[in-house]
Amino acid sequence: MSKDSTIVDQLYQTIAARKGADPTQSYTAKLFSRGRGKIAQKVGEESVETLVAALSETPERVVSESADLLYHLLVLWADCGVRPADVWAELERRQGTSGIAEKNARKE
Amino acid sequence: MSKDSTIVDQLYQTIAARKGADPTQSYTAKLFSRGRGKIAQKVGEESVETLVAALSETPERVVSESADLLYHLLVLWADCGVRPADVWAELERRQGTSGIAEKNARKE
Amino acid sequence: MSKDSTIVDQLYQTIAARKGADPTQSYTAKLFSRGRGKIAQKVGEESVETLVAALSETPERVVSESADLLYHLLVLWADCGVRPADVWAELERRQGTSGIAEKNARKE
Amino acid sequence: MSKDSTIVDQLYQTIAARKGADPTQSYTAKLFSRGRGKIAQKVGEESVETLVAALSETPERVVSESADLLYHLLVLWADCGVRPADVWAELERRQGTSGIAEKNARKE
Repeated sequence: MSKDSTIVDQLYQTIAARKGADPTQSYTAKLFSRGRGKIAQKVGEESVETLVAALSETPERVVSESADLLYHLLVLWADCGVRPADVWAELERRQGTSGIAEKNARKE
Repeated sequence: MSKDSTIVDQLYQTIAARKGADPTQSYTAKLFSRGRGKIAQKVGEESVETLVAALSETPERVVSESADLLYHLLVLWADCGVRPADVWAELERRQGTSGIAEKNARKE
Repeated sequence: MSKDSTIVDQLYQTIAARKGADPTQSYTAKLFSRGRGKIAQKVGEESVETLVAALSETPERVVSESADLLYHLLVLWADCGVRPADVWAELERRQGTSGIAEKNARKE
Repeated sequence: MSKDSTIVDQLYQTIAARKGADPTQSYTAKLFSRGRGKIAQKVGEESVETLVAALSETPERVVSESADLLYHLLVLWADCGVRPADVWAELERRQGTSGIAEKNARKE
């Protein structure tokens, strides 16, 4: 049992429950109300902040920016109707059948 | 117990074990050998592909690109000495104390 | 007179002339044929490569990646019906009226 | 003579002159004072905003975000000691010798 990793699934549930909620009461609800373009923009920005942290800051900053990135990625998934289980299944499928290494090597 | 989400932790273990392995035998080992700049670049590129998928393609493409993004993010974490548990703890801390919504609202 | 900077306008003309051309004969025509999602993705990727070059490589790599970024940005402009003159006018307007510094300060 | 395109060179001169200036008096001076990581981050963010504008907003928004992107790219160039003329020369070299299309095709 992994208490650590299920935080992602719990956070997704919290996020998905904010769809259609009052945008003045929650940052998540406000993001949904601003539309997918804005949500996608935040994913891109947090990704940039994560890689800048990795290249020129500290591991603590990588942790903090990665948390921001994952949070906004979960909002994007919720907005697109994608569930975490869909992505875990895709990761498992790649590892189970041919290995992520082979999958990615073919992609190059 | 969540079998679904622990795939991320399992994948991280597989990735971390490739550090220093023969770069000709594994895509992951090759990525590590090319250095953090290259790994960070892949995280940025996969993030861009994820947001383009969300804005102009299908949910299936969002799933596939998100899997690519997470895989490369895990490689970046491993290269920086960041463990998934560090990021889960950060997400939990935010949710536990003041809520992700409040945390993010303050950040704006 | 600036011979140096007009290369951007010349390159834009060359690019715009490739819209609708045979995708097997030119990289630019192939990009247009693959659609705006793909063009936008390339802009994002080249931007990531530019910032990684600035943070972990050499000025020569910044020059090379910036050239790639500008080229793909011009393709995106052409695909959106945006002309370089539109962007120069916007830059001039900001500098002329209140200064780019003030404009950006207000944006923060 | 192209008055339109030389705005980029003029803007670069203005930006470069702010290096080392009082960070409280100018957004550009403040950016320089915050370091290359922060400047690179802004280039990445504005690039994301440009591609989101192209995929889900209007040509006017593409113009506005592209102006932001170019401004921050010029700050990054100035911080790295790259001059616009270096990038124009690179674009010219590619067009002159083998054509941007061929250059990029080889890169794929």
